[in-house]
Amino acid sequence: MFNLFSLKGGLNNVKGFFCDGVNVGMKKGEDGDVAFIRSEVPCDITARFTSNKFQAAPIKHYLNYEKDFKTDFILMNAKNANAMTGEKGIEDIENIFENLKEHYQVKNPIMSSTGVIGYRLNQEKITSAFSKFDYNAKNSDKTARSIMTTDSFKKELAFKIELDDGTSFNVAGICKGAGMINPAMATMLCFITTDANIPKADMEALLTEATEGSFNRISVDGDTSTNDSIMLLANKLSNAYNKEAFREALNKITFELAMMILKDGEGANKLVAFEVKGAKNDAEAKKASMALSNSLLVKTALFGEDPNWGRIASTIGASGVECNDSSLSIHYDNLLIYSNEERELDKERENKAYSIMKNSSFKVSCDLGLGNGSYTSYGCDLSYEYVKINAEYRT
Amino acid sequence: MFNLFSLKGGLNNVKGFFCDGVNVGMKKGEDGDVAFIRSEVPCDITARFTSNKFQAAPIKHYLNYEKDFKTDFILMNAKNANAMTGEKGIEDIENIFENLKEHYQVKNPIMSSTGVIGYRLNQEKITSAFSKFDYNAKNSDKTARSIMTTDSFKKELAFKIELDDGTSFNVAGICKGAGMINPAMATMLCFITTDANIPKADMEALLTEATEGSFNRISVDGDTSTNDSIMLLANKLSNAYNKEAFREALNKITFELAMMILKDGEGANKLVAFEVKGAKNDAEAKKASMALSNSLLVKTALFGEDPNWGRIASTIGASGVECNDSSLSIHYDNLLIYSNEERELDKERENKAYSIMKNSSFKVSCDLGLGNGSYTSYGCDLSYEYVKINAEYRT
Repeated sequence: MFNLFSLKGGLNNVKGFFCDGVNVGMKKGEDGDVAFIRSEVPCDITARFTSNKFQAAPIKHYLNYEKDFKTDFILMNAKNANAMTGEKGIEDIENIFENLKEHYQVKNPIMSSTGVIGYRLNQEKITSAFSKFDYNAKNSDKTARSIMTTDSFKKELAFKIELDDGTSFNVAGICKGAGMINPAMATMLCFITTDANIPKADMEALLTEATEGSFNRISVDGDTSTNDSIMLLANKLSNAYNKEAFREALNKITFELAMMILKDGEGANKLVAFEVKGAKNDAEAKKASMALSNSLLVKTALFGEDPNWGRIASTIGASGVECNDSSLSIHYDNLLIYSNEERELDKERENKAYSIMKNSSFKVSCDLGLGNGSYTSYGCDLSYEYVKINAEYRT
Repeated sequence: MFNLFSLKGGLNNVKGFFCDGVNVGMKKGEDGDVAFIRSEVPCDITARFTSNKFQAAPIKHYLNYEKDFKTDFILMNAKNANAMTGEKGIEDIENIFENLKEHYQVKNPIMSSTGVIGYRLNQEKITSAFSKFDYNAKNSDKTARSIMTTDSFKKELAFKIELDDGTSFNVAGICKGAGMINPAMATMLCFITTDANIPKADMEALLTEATEGSFNRISVDGDTSTNDSIMLLANKLSNAYNKEAFREALNKITFELAMMILKDGEGANKLVAFEVKGAKNDAEAKKASMALSNSLLVKTALFGEDPNWGRIASTIGASGVECNDSSLSIHYDNLLIYSNEERELDKERENKAYSIMKNSSFKVSCDLGLGNGSYTSYGCDLSYEYVKINAEYRT
């Protein structure tokens, strides 16, 4: 049907897209703090935003555009979320884009921000980027670095998809996020570009599916930011498209970016898949699985590398889903940890459990033994470092 | 109407109740690990148990008694929760009580356990307490210490209530719990004794009210244990009773014990009241208030003494309740932190906010500005120490 190849770099691989990031003095060090992604022709765009009721000003600004608008420019900044800033926050964005138009012609520009809540943007610093940008650069690395906040590494990916008829298209993505993920704050931002000739309706449907299978399944700390955004831009310049191929590429890119966020979870050392199966239905499985990803006691036991399955069981019981201790079984990877017949860990299994927990990633699988509902979410451990990062975030 | 006096000590103040605690080698150090509370006459008893679906064996054992049973004996142990132990866990309790009857005659004895999940009780050690107990002791201090796990101080209280007609009764309580509170695990156990001549129907109604106003409003880490139990025992020996007076005493004792648990929150340094008012209704206010008590980002900001109100606002927005940023206002104690007109903290108010956050207790009050719903929950900060305690709990 089609072949999918991993490419080096990120957004630089997609025809007709340009990007760059510069430092205007908001972030210490060499990384940028203001960046852009532009397309040489107007793009269709689909976005998913935070479920937080206090959506930040850039999201409100985006939602003021008419349905099915096209855009050729996204401006991003770090260090300030432009959230809880009211009408002024939206006016600031409009003023910034007025200024941009003196440097570069753009159509329906979009802004995306991450950083501290409750402060107006520094317009002077942000607009100072407009004479520093190289508008014809394909600088995915600098762009991905510019949106980093507490991230410890940049997150970019790209795939080439070759179809049977010899045509091909590319899909690339960058994202940021390390804490406040559910999907969440310190904010999760993700920008995906493609030159596939994808219909707008497919963009909507496939981005919903991809988000549900990736960013909506991860949790660092159960908090959800005011600014979380996932955007898919398609400039159609390749003239190639196949829905199944695009679905696979998009699902892959969003899942891998989501796992990068989780691996970069603030202070996190372990990536754990929490599979719940045998639930009454999928909704109950999801509820129990997300409860495991979010439980402080589970997360601290992971950090302590303690195979304390009692906390796993207790968290499922506390989540409110239908369950009972005689039909429940728990595995760590392929090791049986608990079942009705094997309630106490003997020394041999306990030692095996200890060694699984020393791995940097493993699976906790809980079979409720009641039905066909299943769901897998992905979480991480909670370390001293998380507390440190979040106690000191503003200072 | 009546006068309420605080008394020294705890359970020792109530006529006809006896208690003692001894160490049988399950707990290191001098504190006991097995204890009892008994009454010289059978008591009416009312209990509230965890909402966790995996209720521990002692709770199942309790629920096997017929409705309105009377009891004269509660046996408690630390270090082992007897949870997820199945039918064997209940049989173990029955065997322990068979053994007890060789030492002391009891009627419908109850067991209450706290500790690690997933291991059978050590019957030999627990029954060895039966020849060590002083069954005529009024040793509230040793009893309260025996049920401690990660608690750093014992929790006991007692009140005397003098009625206008010259009669009086006493109410006393002990409890334990420092983590897994929501109300929750490392388990919250609370035992309240009274000699008031209270009707069973009032015991039910007033304990429900008192629990809702106290233990159900506190959160250390959002987890709910398999063993949480609150028991009210009334032996009626005083022959005195007044419903309003008893309500006040019971509400006071449960609220103060709940605050002790929160002050002893694992690694916690601050006790914070999260008041939400102006919500569409009380249920929405509760949802937002509990979200604040449970948010990792709010808890780490409290630990960092950072007046980062953005995390407060973001958590309310993420909780799913109806709210908007133009009708919202936030106060720390009496200091206005955010309103539609005052969105950015100036230096003077920020400095005042810093000094409030250095206090060991204060109030965060959020007015959603939409209706008359209100609710206050109580939380604490999250420190390195919490992570340490919970990463190392079993070892």
